[in-house]
Amino acid sequence: MRKISDSTVRRLSLYLRFLEQAQAQGRSTISSGELARLGGTTSAQVRKDLSFFGSFGKRGLGYAVPELAAKIQGILGLQRAYRVVLVGAGKMGGALVQYQGFRQRGFHIAAIYDQDARKIGSHWNGLVVRDVKHLEADLKKEPSDIAIVATPGAAAQEVVDRLVRCGVKAILNFAPVPLAVPADVEVKTVNMALELETLSYALANR
Amino acid sequence: MRKISDSTVRRLSLYLRFLEQAQAQGRSTISSGELARLGGTTSAQVRKDLSFFGSFGKRGLGYAVPELAAKIQGILGLQRAYRVVLVGAGKMGGALVQYQGFRQRGFHIAAIYDQDARKIGSHWNGLVVRDVKHLEADLKKEPSDIAIVATPGAAAQEVVDRLVRCGVKAILNFAPVPLAVPADVEVKTVNMALELETLSYALANR
Repeated sequence: MRKISDSTVRRLSLYLRFLEQAQAQGRSTISSGELARLGGTTSAQVRKDLSFFGSFGKRGLGYAVPELAAKIQGILGLQRAYRVVLVGAGKMGGALVQYQGFRQRGFHIAAIYDQDARKIGSHWNGLVVRDVKHLEADLKKEPSDIAIVATPGAAAQEVVDRLVRCGVKAILNFAPVPLAVPADVEVKTVNMALELETLSYALANR
Repeated sequence: MRKISDSTVRRLSLYLRFLEQAQAQGRSTISSGELARLGGTTSAQVRKDLSFFGSFGKRGLGYAVPELAAKIQGILGLQRAYRVVLVGAGKMGGALVQYQGFRQRGFHIAAIYDQDARKIGSHWNGLVVRDVKHLEADLKKEPSDIAIVATPGAAAQEVVDRLVRCGVKAILNFAPVPLAVPADVEVKTVNMALELETLSYALANR
Protein backbone atom coordinates (compact mmCIF):
# COMPACT_ATOMS: atom_id res chain seq x y z
CA MET A 1 0.00 0.00 0.00
CA ARG A 2 1.13 3.51 -0.74
CA LYS A 3 2.52 5.31 2.30
CA ILE A 4 0.14 8.04 3.38
CA SER A 5 1.00 11.20 5.25
CA ASP A 6 0.43 11.84 8.92
CA SER A 7 -2.17 14.50 8.14
CA THR A 8 -4.08 12.05 5.91
CA VAL A 9 -4.06 9.47 8.72
CA ARG A 10 -5.48 12.14 11.04
CA ARG A 11 -8.25 12.98 8.63
CA LEU A 12 -9.09 9.30 8.17
CA SER A 13 -9.42 9.01 11.96
CA LEU A 14 -11.84 11.90 11.94
CA TYR A 15 -13.88 10.50 9.04
CA LEU A 16 -14.11 7.21 10.92
CA ARG A 17 -15.62 9.00 13.92
CA PHE A 18 -18.29 10.61 11.75
CA LEU A 19 -18.98 7.33 9.95
CA GLU A 20 -19.48 5.58 13.27
CA GLN A 21 -21.86 8.30 14.40
CA ALA A 22 -23.79 7.95 11.12
CA GLN A 23 -23.83 4.18 11.56
CA ALA A 24 -25.19 4.53 15.10
CA GLN A 25 -28.00 6.66 13.63
CA GLY A 26 -28.81 3.86 11.21
CA ARG A 27 -27.74 5.77 8.10
CA SER A 28 -26.50 3.79 5.08
CA THR A 29 -24.79 6.54 3.05
CA ILE A 30 -22.87 9.75 3.65
CA SER A 31 -21.65 12.31 1.11
CA SER A 32 -18.11 13.61 0.72
CA GLY A 33 -19.61 17.07 1.35
CA GLU A 34 -20.93 16.04 4.76
CA LEU A 35 -17.67 14.35 5.76
CA ALA A 36 -15.87 17.51 4.64
CA ARG A 37 -18.12 19.79 6.64
CA LEU A 38 -17.82 17.67 9.81
CA GLY A 39 -14.06 17.37 9.42
CA GLY A 40 -13.45 21.02 8.57
CA THR A 41 -12.06 20.28 5.11
CA THR A 42 -13.22 20.26 1.47
CA SER A 43 -15.15 17.63 -0.51
CA ALA A 44 -12.23 17.43 -2.91
CA GLN A 45 -9.88 16.62 -0.01
CA VAL A 46 -12.24 13.90 1.28
CA ARG A 47 -12.46 12.31 -2.16
CA LYS A 48 -8.69 12.51 -2.56
CA ASP A 49 -8.04 10.97 0.86
CA LEU A 50 -10.42 8.09 0.22
CA SER A 51 -9.29 7.48 -3.35
CA PHE A 52 -5.94 6.24 -2.00
CA PHE A 53 -7.66 3.06 -0.94
CA GLY A 54 -9.90 2.27 -3.88
CA SER A 55 -13.32 3.46 -4.84
CA PHE A 56 -16.07 3.47 -2.21
CA GLY A 57 -18.29 6.22 -3.46
CA LYS A 58 -21.22 6.08 -5.85
CA ARG A 59 -21.79 9.29 -7.74
CA GLY A 60 -24.91 10.99 -6.42
CA LEU A 61 -25.36 8.49 -3.56
CA GLY A 62 -22.30 9.09 -1.45
CA TYR A 63 -20.25 6.55 0.43
CA ALA A 64 -21.67 3.33 1.88
CA VAL A 65 -21.30 3.95 5.62
CA PRO A 66 -20.56 0.49 7.08
CA GLU A 67 -18.23 -0.49 4.20
CA LEU A 68 -16.22 2.72 4.38
CA ALA A 69 -16.01 2.53 8.19
CA ALA A 70 -14.72 -1.05 8.03
CA LYS A 71 -12.22 -0.14 5.34
CA ILE A 72 -10.82 2.81 7.32
CA GLN A 73 -10.63 0.64 10.45
CA GLY A 74 -8.56 -1.80 8.44
CA ILE A 75 -6.28 0.92 7.05
CA LEU A 76 -5.67 2.35 10.52
CA GLY A 77 -5.01 -1.06 12.04
CA LEU A 78 -8.06 -0.71 14.31
CA GLN A 79 -9.71 -4.04 13.52
CA ARG A 80 -7.82 -5.46 16.52
CA ALA A 81 -7.34 -4.45 20.14
CA TYR A 82 -3.99 -3.26 21.46
CA ARG A 83 -2.52 -3.99 24.85
CA VAL A 84 -0.87 -0.77 26.01
CA VAL A 85 1.54 -0.31 28.90
CA LEU A 86 1.88 3.06 30.59
CA VAL A 87 5.12 4.10 32.27
CA GLY A 88 4.86 7.10 34.60
CA ALA A 89 2.11 7.36 37.20
CA GLY A 90 2.20 11.15 37.51
CA LYS A 91 -0.53 13.68 36.79
CA MET A 92 -0.39 13.14 33.04
CA GLY A 93 -0.38 9.35 33.47
CA GLY A 94 -3.43 9.67 35.70
CA ALA A 95 -5.31 11.67 33.09
CA LEU A 96 -4.39 9.18 30.37
CA VAL A 97 -5.53 6.16 32.38
CA GLN A 98 -8.95 7.76 32.75
CA TYR A 99 -9.14 8.82 29.13
CA GLN A 100 -12.29 7.22 27.70
CA GLY A 101 -11.24 7.58 24.09
CA PHE A 102 -8.46 5.01 24.31
CA ARG A 103 -10.65 2.07 25.25
CA GLN A 104 -13.36 3.08 22.79
CA ARG A 105 -10.75 2.74 20.06
CA GLY A 106 -9.43 -0.62 21.26
CA PHE A 107 -6.39 0.70 23.12
CA HIS A 108 -6.46 -1.03 26.52
CA ILE A 109 -4.07 0.25 29.15
CA ALA A 110 -3.21 -3.07 30.76
CA ALA A 111 -0.41 -2.09 33.16
CA ILE A 112 1.00 1.04 34.81
CA TYR A 113 4.57 1.41 36.06
CA ASP A 114 6.41 3.90 38.20
CA GLN A 115 9.64 3.97 40.19
CA ASP A 116 8.24 6.02 43.07
CA ALA A 117 7.63 3.86 46.15
CA ARG A 118 4.76 6.16 47.15
CA LYS A 119 2.92 5.34 43.93
CA ILE A 120 3.75 1.65 43.58
CA GLY A 121 0.85 -0.46 44.84
CA SER A 122 -1.76 2.25 44.54
CA HIS A 123 -4.97 1.49 42.65
CA TRP A 124 -5.65 3.36 39.43
CA ASN A 125 -8.79 2.74 37.46
CA GLY A 126 -8.83 -0.94 38.38
CA LEU A 127 -5.08 -1.40 37.92
CA VAL A 128 -2.34 -1.56 40.53
CA VAL A 129 0.72 0.62 39.84
CA ARG A 130 3.69 -1.71 39.53
CA ASP A 131 7.38 -1.14 40.21
CA VAL A 132 9.08 -0.35 36.90
CA LYS A 133 11.76 -2.87 37.79
CA HIS A 134 9.24 -5.57 36.76
CA LEU A 135 8.84 -4.08 33.26
CA GLU A 136 11.05 -6.58 31.44
CA ALA A 137 9.68 -9.67 33.21
CA ASP A 138 6.07 -8.53 32.71
CA LEU A 139 6.55 -7.77 29.01
CA LYS A 140 8.19 -11.14 28.52
CA LYS A 141 5.04 -12.79 29.91
CA GLU A 142 2.61 -10.44 28.20
CA PRO A 143 4.10 -8.58 25.24
CA SER A 144 2.75 -5.18 24.19
CA ASP A 145 3.03 -3.45 20.85
CA ILE A 146 2.35 0.01 22.20
CA ALA A 147 3.63 1.90 25.24
CA ILE A 148 2.80 5.32 26.59
CA VAL A 149 5.67 7.15 28.27
CA ALA A 150 4.61 9.84 30.74
CA THR A 151 7.74 10.05 32.89
CA PRO A 152 9.78 13.17 33.66
CA GLY A 153 12.05 14.13 30.78
CA ALA A 154 15.23 12.90 32.45
CA ALA A 155 13.89 9.34 32.79
CA ALA A 156 12.25 8.99 29.39
CA GLN A 157 15.10 7.81 27.18
CA GLU A 158 16.15 5.04 29.56
CA VAL A 159 12.55 3.83 29.83
CA VAL A 160 12.21 3.91 26.04
CA ASP A 161 15.43 1.92 25.59
CA ARG A 162 14.06 -0.73 27.94
CA LEU A 163 10.68 -0.82 26.18
CA VAL A 164 12.38 -1.20 22.79
CA ARG A 165 14.52 -4.07 24.06
CA CYS A 166 11.28 -5.74 25.20
CA GLY A 167 9.85 -5.58 21.68
CA VAL A 168 7.58 -2.54 21.95
CA LYS A 169 7.18 -1.14 18.44
CA ALA A 170 5.22 2.06 18.97
CA ILE A 171 5.55 4.70 21.68
CA LEU A 172 3.35 7.64 22.53
CA ASN A 173 5.62 10.05 24.40
CA PHE A 174 4.43 12.78 26.76
CA ALA A 175 7.86 13.48 28.22
CA PRO A 176 9.13 16.86 26.99
CA VAL A 177 12.23 15.47 25.27
CA PRO A 178 12.97 14.06 21.81
CA LEU A 179 13.57 10.31 21.96
CA ALA A 180 16.02 8.18 20.01
CA VAL A 181 14.68 4.82 18.78
CA PRO A 182 15.68 2.26 16.13
CA ALA A 183 14.24 2.73 12.63
CA ASP A 184 11.62 0.00 13.10
CA VAL A 185 10.07 1.69 16.16
CA GLU A 186 7.56 4.53 15.81
CA VAL A 187 7.53 7.39 18.31
CA LYS A 188 4.92 10.09 18.51
CA THR A 189 5.67 12.92 20.93
CA VAL A 190 2.80 14.96 22.32
CA ASN A 191 4.04 18.29 23.59
CA MET A 192 1.30 20.35 25.19
CA ALA A 193 3.33 23.56 25.28
CA LEU A 194 4.05 23.18 21.59
CA GLU A 195 0.31 23.06 20.93
CA LEU A 196 -0.06 26.38 22.74
CA GLU A 197 2.85 27.77 20.75
CA THR A 198 1.04 27.10 17.48
CA LEU A 199 -1.78 29.20 18.97
CA SER A 200 0.50 32.02 20.08
CA TYR A 201 2.00 32.00 16.58
CA ALA A 202 -1.51 32.38 15.18
CA LEU A 203 -2.30 35.21 17.60
CA ALA A 204 0.95 37.02 16.81
CA ASN A 205 0.55 36.74 13.03
CA ARG A 206 -3.05 37.63 12.39
CA MET B 1 5.07 38.01 6.85
CA ARG B 2 4.57 34.94 4.76
CA LYS B 3 2.15 32.44 6.29
CA ILE B 4 4.04 29.35 7.41
CA SER B 5 2.66 25.86 7.83
CA ASP B 6 1.73 24.18 11.08
CA SER B 7 4.57 21.69 10.69
CA THR B 8 7.07 24.54 10.20
CA VAL B 9 5.77 26.23 13.37
CA ARG B 10 6.28 22.94 15.22
CA ARG B 11 9.84 22.61 13.99
CA LEU B 12 10.58 26.23 14.95
CA SER B 13 9.34 25.43 18.48
CA LEU B 14 11.72 22.51 18.63
CA TYR B 15 14.67 24.53 17.31
CA LEU B 16 13.93 27.14 19.95
CA ARG B 17 14.22 24.49 22.68
CA PHE B 18 17.62 23.40 21.39
CA LEU B 19 18.79 27.00 21.02
CA GLU B 20 17.80 27.73 24.61
CA GLN B 21 19.69 24.65 25.79
CA ALA B 22 22.75 25.78 23.82
CA GLN B 23 22.40 29.27 25.27
CA ALA B 24 22.23 27.84 28.81
CA GLN B 25 25.50 26.04 28.05
CA GLY B 26 27.07 29.35 27.04
CA ARG B 27 27.42 28.46 23.36
CA SER B 28 27.42 31.26 20.80
CA THR B 29 26.83 29.32 17.57
CA ILE B 30 25.02 26.19 16.43
CA SER B 31 25.08 24.51 13.00
CA SER B 32 22.08 23.58 10.87
CA GLY B 33 23.40 20.01 11.08
CA GLU B 34 23.17 19.97 14.86
CA LEU B 35 19.69 21.51 14.89
CA ALA B 36 18.67 18.90 12.31
CA ARG B 37 20.06 16.02 14.34
CA LEU B 38 18.39 17.20 17.57
CA GLY B 39 15.09 17.84 15.79
CA GLY B 40 15.09 14.62 13.80
CA THR B 41 15.15 16.36 10.42
CA THR B 42 17.69 17.32 7.71
CA SER B 43 20.10 20.26 7.50
CA ALA B 44 18.39 21.31 4.28
CA GLN B 45 15.03 21.43 6.09
CA VAL B 46 16.50 23.52 8.92
CA ARG B 47 18.01 25.99 6.46
CA LYS B 48 14.74 26.15 4.54
CA ASP B 49 12.68 26.71 7.70
CA LEU B 50 14.95 29.50 8.90
CA SER B 51 15.33 31.14 5.51
CA PHE B 52 11.66 32.18 5.69
CA PHE B 53 12.63 34.84 8.18
CA GLY B 54 15.80 36.26 6.74
CA SER B 55 19.40 35.17 6.94
CA PHE B 56 20.84 34.24 10.34
CA GLY B 57 23.56 31.81 9.37
CA LYS B 58 27.18 32.45 8.51
CA ARG B 59 28.66 29.85 6.21
CA GLY B 60 31.04 27.66 8.15
CA LEU B 61 30.16 29.26 11.50
CA GLY B 62 26.55 28.27 11.95
CA TYR B 63 23.75 30.30 13.47
CA ALA B 64 24.27 32.90 16.20
CA VAL B 65 22.45 31.27 19.13
CA PRO B 66 20.99 34.25 21.07
CA GLU B 67 19.98 36.15 17.91
CA LEU B 68 18.25 33.15 16.36
CA ALA B 69 16.50 32.27 19.65
CA ALA B 70 15.19 35.84 20.00
CA LYS B 71 14.04 35.86 16.38
CA ILE B 72 12.12 32.57 16.73
CA GLN B 73 10.56 33.78 19.98
CA GLY B 74 9.35 36.81 18.09
CA ILE B 75 7.98 34.74 15.21
CA LEU B 76 6.12 32.44 17.58
CA GLY B 77 4.70 35.33 19.61
CA LEU B 78 6.59 34.17 22.72
CA GLN B 79 8.21 37.48 23.65
CA ARG B 80 5.19 38.11 25.89
CA ALA B 81 3.34 36.15 28.57
CA TYR B 82 -0.18 34.85 28.04
CA ARG B 83 -2.92 34.71 30.61
CA VAL B 84 -4.71 31.39 30.05
CA VAL B 85 -8.05 30.28 31.48
CA LEU B 86 -8.84 26.60 31.86
CA VAL B 87 -12.42 25.32 31.74
CA GLY B 88 -12.91 21.78 33.03
CA ALA B 89 -11.45 20.63 36.33
CA GLY B 90 -11.42 16.92 35.49
CA LYS B 91 -8.49 14.53 35.23
CA MET B 92 -7.14 16.12 32.07
CA GLY B 93 -7.55 19.61 33.51
CA GLY B 94 -5.64 18.49 36.58
CA ALA B 95 -2.75 17.20 34.50
CA LEU B 96 -2.65 20.41 32.47
CA VAL B 97 -2.61 22.68 35.53
CA GLN B 98 0.46 20.84 36.78
CA TYR B 99 2.17 20.83 33.41
CA GLN B 100 5.52 22.58 33.87
CA GLY B 101 6.05 23.29 30.21
CA PHE B 102 3.27 25.88 29.99
CA ARG B 103 4.70 28.28 32.53
CA GLN B 104 8.23 27.85 31.19
CA ARG B 105 6.92 29.10 27.85
CA GLY B 106 5.03 32.05 29.31
CA PHE B 107 1.58 30.46 29.34
CA HIS B 108 0.18 31.14 32.80
CA ILE B 109 -2.98 29.33 33.78
CA ALA B 110 -4.62 32.10 35.78
CA ALA B 111 -8.08 30.66 36.47
CA ILE B 112 -9.85 27.29 36.46
CA TYR B 113 -13.59 26.81 36.02
CA ASP B 114 -16.00 23.93 36.43
CA GLN B 115 -19.73 23.51 36.87
CA ASP B 116 -19.49 20.64 39.35
CA ALA B 117 -20.31 21.82 42.90
CA ARG B 118 -17.94 19.15 44.29
CA LYS B 119 -15.01 20.73 42.44
CA ILE B 120 -15.85 24.41 42.85
CA GLY B 121 -13.84 25.90 45.70
CA SER B 122 -11.17 23.22 45.71
CA HIS B 123 -7.51 24.28 45.56
CA TRP B 124 -5.48 23.37 42.51
CA ASN B 125 -1.86 24.33 42.22
CA GLY B 126 -2.43 27.59 44.09
CA LEU B 127 -5.68 28.38 42.30
CA VAL B 128 -9.25 27.96 43.52
CA VAL B 129 -11.63 26.26 41.08
CA ARG B 130 -14.37 28.77 40.27
CA ASP B 131 -17.98 28.26 39.24
CA VAL B 132 -18.15 28.53 35.44
CA LYS B 133 -21.12 30.87 35.86
CA HIS B 134 -18.56 33.58 36.72
CA LEU B 135 -16.70 33.11 33.42
CA GLU B 136 -18.13 36.17 31.64
CA ALA B 137 -17.76 38.53 34.61
CA ASP B 138 -14.20 37.35 35.28
CA LEU B 139 -13.11 37.70 31.67
CA LYS B 140 -14.60 41.17 31.53
CA LYS B 141 -12.39 42.18 34.47
CA GLU B 142 -9.33 40.25 33.28
CA PRO B 143 -9.40 39.39 29.59
CA SER B 144 -7.55 36.34 28.26
CA ASP B 145 -6.34 35.64 24.75
CA ILE B 146 -6.07 31.90 25.21
CA ALA B 147 -8.35 29.32 26.82
CA ILE B 148 -7.94 25.61 27.36
CA VAL B 149 -11.14 23.57 27.16
CA ALA B 150 -11.00 20.23 28.98
CA THR B 151 -14.71 19.62 29.55
CA PRO B 152 -16.70 16.54 28.52
CA GLY B 153 -17.55 16.56 24.81
CA ALA B 154 -21.20 17.47 25.35
CA ALA B 155 -20.33 20.70 27.19
CA ALA B 156 -17.48 21.90 24.99
CA GLN B 157 -19.29 23.83 22.24
CA GLU B 158 -21.35 25.87 24.68
CA VAL B 159 -18.24 26.73 26.70
CA VAL B 160 -16.40 27.70 23.52
CA ASP B 161 -19.29 29.94 22.39
CA ARG B 162 -19.14 31.73 25.73
CA LEU B 163 -15.35 32.11 25.58
CA VAL B 164 -15.55 33.52 22.06
CA ARG B 165 -18.19 36.05 23.11
CA CYS B 166 -15.78 37.13 25.87
CA GLY B 167 -13.04 37.86 23.34
CA VAL B 168 -10.91 34.73 23.62
CA LYS B 169 -9.05 34.36 20.34
CA ALA B 170 -7.28 31.02 20.68
CA ILE B 171 -8.52 27.76 22.16
CA LEU B 172 -6.67 24.57 22.95
CA ASN B 173 -9.36 21.88 22.99
CA PHE B 174 -9.05 18.53 24.75
CA ALA B 175 -12.74 17.64 24.45
CA PRO B 176 -13.21 14.84 21.92
CA VAL B 177 -15.42 16.85 19.57
CA PRO B 178 -14.80 19.22 16.67
CA LEU B 179 -15.64 22.82 17.61
CA ALA B 180 -17.21 25.56 15.52
CA VAL B 181 -15.69 29.03 15.93
CA PRO B 182 -15.68 32.29 13.95
CA ALA B 183 -12.94 32.74 11.34
CA ASP B 184 -10.90 35.05 13.58
CA VAL B 185 -10.60 32.48 16.38
CA GLU B 186 -8.00 29.69 16.28
CA VAL B 187 -8.81 26.26 17.67
CA LYS B 188 -6.35 23.45 18.13
CA THR B 189 -7.84 20.11 19.14
CA VAL B 190 -5.64 17.59 20.92
CA ASN B 191 -7.07 14.11 20.57
CA MET B 192 -5.08 11.52 22.47
CA ALA B 193 -6.77 8.54 20.81
CA LEU B 194 -5.98 10.00 17.41
CA GLU B 195 -2.30 10.07 18.38
CA LEU B 196 -2.49 6.37 19.19
CA GLU B 197 -4.25 5.76 15.88
CA THR B 198 -1.34 7.21 13.94
CA LEU B 199 0.78 4.62 15.79
CA SER B 200 -1.57 1.73 15.06
CA TYR B 201 -1.54 2.82 11.41
CA ALA B 202 2.25 2.66 11.48
CA LEU B 203 2.18 -0.78 13.12
CA ALA B 204 -0.36 -2.10 10.61
CA ASN B 205 1.52 -0.78 7.56
CA ARG B 206 5.13 -1.65 8.22
